[in-house]
Amino acid sequence: MAHLVTHCSFSASPAVKTFSRSPSYCCNVGQLQNSKSSNLSLKSSLKRQKKSYVTCASAAVQGQTQTPLTGSQEASGHSSSKPKKVMVIGGDGYCGWATALHLSNKGYEVAIVDNLVRRLFDHQLGLESLTPITSIQNRVRRWKSLTGKTIQLFIGDICDFDFLSEAFKSFEPDVAVHFGEQRSAPYSMIDRSRAVYTQHNNVIGTLNVLFAIKEYSEECHLVKLGTMGEYGTPNIDIEEGFITITHNGRTDTLPYPKQASSFYHLSKVHDSHNIAFTCRAWGIRATDLNQGVVYGVRTDETALHEELSNRFDYDGVFGTALNRFCVQAAVGHPLTVYGKGGQTRGYLDIRDTVQCVELAIANPAKPGEFRVFNQFTEQFSVNDLAKLVTAAGAKLGLDVQTKSVPNPRVEAEEHYYNAKHTKLIELGLVPHLLSDSLLDSLLNFAVQYKDRVDTAQIMPSVSWKKMGAKPRTVSV
Amino acid sequence: MAHLVTHCSFSASPAVKTFSRSPSYCCNVGQLQNSKSSNLSLKSSLKRQKKSYVTCASAAVQGQTQTPLTGSQEASGHSSSKPKKVMVIGGDGYCGWATALHLSNKGYEVAIVDNLVRRLFDHQLGLESLTPITSIQNRVRRWKSLTGKTIQLFIGDICDFDFLSEAFKSFEPDVAVHFGEQRSAPYSMIDRSRAVYTQHNNVIGTLNVLFAIKEYSEECHLVKLGTMGEYGTPNIDIEEGFITITHNGRTDTLPYPKQASSFYHLSKVHDSHNIAFTCRAWGIRATDLNQGVVYGVRTDETALHEELSNRFDYDGVFGTALNRFCVQAAVGHPLTVYGKGGQTRGYLDIRDTVQCVELAIANPAKPGEFRVFNQFTEQFSVNDLAKLVTAAGAKLGLDVQTKSVPNPRVEAEEHYYNAKHTKLIELGLVPHLLSDSLLDSLLNFAVQYKDRVDTAQIMPSVSWKKMGAKPRTVSV
Repeated sequence: MAHLVTHCSFSASPAVKTFSRSPSYCCNVGQLQNSKSSNLSLKSSLKRQKKSYVTCASAAVQGQTQTPLTGSQEASGHSSSKPKKVMVIGGDGYCGWATALHLSNKGYEVAIVDNLVRRLFDHQLGLESLTPITSIQNRVRRWKSLTGKTIQLFIGDICDFDFLSEAFKSFEPDVAVHFGEQRSAPYSMIDRSRAVYTQHNNVIGTLNVLFAIKEYSEECHLVKLGTMGEYGTPNIDIEEGFITITHNGRTDTLPYPKQASSFYHLSKVHDSHNIAFTCRAWGIRATDLNQGVVYGVRTDETALHEELSNRFDYDGVFGTALNRFCVQAAVGHPLTVYGKGGQTRGYLDIRDTVQCVELAIANPAKPGEFRVFNQFTEQFSVNDLAKLVTAAGAKLGLDVQTKSVPNPRVEAEEHYYNAKHTKLIELGLVPHLLSDSLLDSLLNFAVQYKDRVDTAQIMPSVSWKKMGAKPRTVSV
Repeated sequence: MAHLVTHCSFSASPAVKTFSRSPSYCCNVGQLQNSKSSNLSLKSSLKRQKKSYVTCASAAVQGQTQTPLTGSQEASGHSSSKPKKVMVIGGDGYCGWATALHLSNKGYEVAIVDNLVRRLFDHQLGLESLTPITSIQNRVRRWKSLTGKTIQLFIGDICDFDFLSEAFKSFEPDVAVHFGEQRSAPYSMIDRSRAVYTQHNNVIGTLNVLFAIKEYSEECHLVKLGTMGEYGTPNIDIEEGFITITHNGRTDTLPYPKQASSFYHLSKVHDSHNIAFTCRAWGIRATDLNQGVVYGVRTDETALHEELSNRFDYDGVFGTALNRFCVQAAVGHPLTVYGKGGQTRGYLDIRDTVQCVELAIANPAKPGEFRVFNQFTEQFSVNDLAKLVTAAGAKLGLDVQTKSVPNPRVEAEEHYYNAKHTKLIELGLVPHLLSDSLLDSLLNFAVQYKDRVDTAQIMPSVSWKKMGAKPRTVSV
């Protein structure tokens, strides 16, 4: 693996600066009609699946809701149809892409800000999404051709404040949805340089977003993706962001104590503290979405066309537990349970991720408010998931085995876990639950793509205890 | 002001790289005898004060305790007198310099690691210590000539991991005392670039120290300077690092919730979370000293000679409340109380800072233990301090006035505050309390140097609410 991310700098690496610092790096899709970056293998595969795209495309148009207006327009009763502008930072990633399309479909004016470094990580680590994904330029062009909706692109690094400033001044967002972080715990534990990269990239990127809001768009609502992993596994119930404590006869409501267990999860803890401070000091309005483990890949919008496909990671670095289990079941690989398998976490379907973000946007935090929602729908232990996948596999005629592998992480393998998650339900979230039918569809999806599975990517390759200061320069 | 710290990079700026990356950047004082960096104004002032230096020098030698041995030597009963090696990161700063001399005097083998950037900040902001301070090279040479004790110097940036690795491999510390951070809340609130610099420098520097310990010196005890400001001002008692919470019928002891109120204080919160994780994951042994506001300047060792003088900051950026009040009283400037003056914090004498660090070293944390001590001796509100300085000033014939100035910070001005601080007392701390006599000595000290006071530096120049994304390129 080429070792390209050892340095921690504000500038994007050359590989991701395609549009950065050029006189105009905002590209409407119309400008990209002659792009040479189209994916030939995708084109041929699209021919085979043309029928389903046509069907879904019309479904999407039917599903479109009324154009959401900006707050000031609502307040003034203006009949102008100027839609609310949402900047989706990290909009080329797993959750970001699905969210950008969903919001565009719902009538929001959407811009994607992304440096595309997630694609670079795949190259460096020798990984590939189970689903073929095309370039971001092709993605937004396809979206435009199917729906008539424009998604603006700002390609650059939010750690480069000049770039971010120009994006803010140009787009003038009402909402900034911030997914633009290195989001893998194992990635942050590969070696020192990845740990430092993760904390620098995530913390400084978020600081820059806060400064951009203060400087250019003070009313802008920050919707920030946190993680349930910030809380760790305390022996008491997990509340949504804050806990009321009575101690020595006095009472206060304080930030819920944080016990994160990777340099990635810690970076999100740091972000939460920084954001909370700017809400108090500057009156920033922010919603911190402490998200659980996301599974699934299809949403109404990404299912429209293969060029809109979302990525699906099943590898030991970026793959999440349930997605990885489904791929393992599909190819006859034993489900790899880390340690005792009693690790319990909150999970949600990616269709609920996009729904939650939309709910947070539609019901914004007040100026100065730092609001925390726990964003998941159900709790499972790793053993629970293995059993569910085994049972669902049996229905498809798959003989699913499970094996315990040494836990590469440092975490409790048997513990109490009860996390509240009522605030998004109160706002109207209707969860997609992990019923057998959903599992069948997840499993069927994995079976559909099983010829693309590289089993060498499945096993854990990053050890929490063994990570070192020296750069790992070979594929993990 | 030249704007030299807008970029956040692992490499030290040219101004502080004197010894970095050269084949040998560890300098014993003997190598520096012919240094051209001696300070002429200091030399002339030294002539005037020769007597006091001679007196104090012999006192220091008398005060020396038995050579502290490394843990393994103690365990094996070895009679070898190999002393415990302490690396003082940030050993040229206010607390770091006093600590380095104190530990050297107590028989520890001391090395200072510092990039000297604190001196650069003074140049950039147009500030100057009340006390003249000489170069670090002159400081350690003077210490050697007075006591015969060598302090090794490693000049470089701990954000540069190559530099830090070489320092660790060369010195092989038993203890790393880490003061090496940007330590001013107002500095971190000047503009975006200083906020980013502070969080990058502090968080990444500390991560590097943790990786250096893991890689090169796994038994090394990290003694890290935190701040009482990490806790904010909750409406319940502040405990030492952890709090036992009973919630919905279950009980757990969890990290005390953090509510920091500047990008600087937040950087220390981030450090605490990162360190706690590495204790759990890697078995690092760490003591986090959540220090209060330090006052005073003289310790037994710095009083030995003017070339050993510590810095004394009274400006609006680096000056702490009590030190600043004493200077204001000395020059007839009204004491500047921010807002209502009810802001209550923990305070301690710098002679207790050095004592606390020594106690933490002598009673190390166990492998895997993350220990937090609240390091202060007394609580005062700003109004309490103003009254004490006014009364002490009257005894010296000074007519001390107080005026309220708009609070540049965002903080509660009237609040409950009761912070525990028993752990260091239990280890043997004998506090220097802020009695009238101490205040007289502080005030007398300020009067002694009052001709050097630049009153333009006194007023607050940094606003928490008004800080912006644009660089402030003029003197603050």
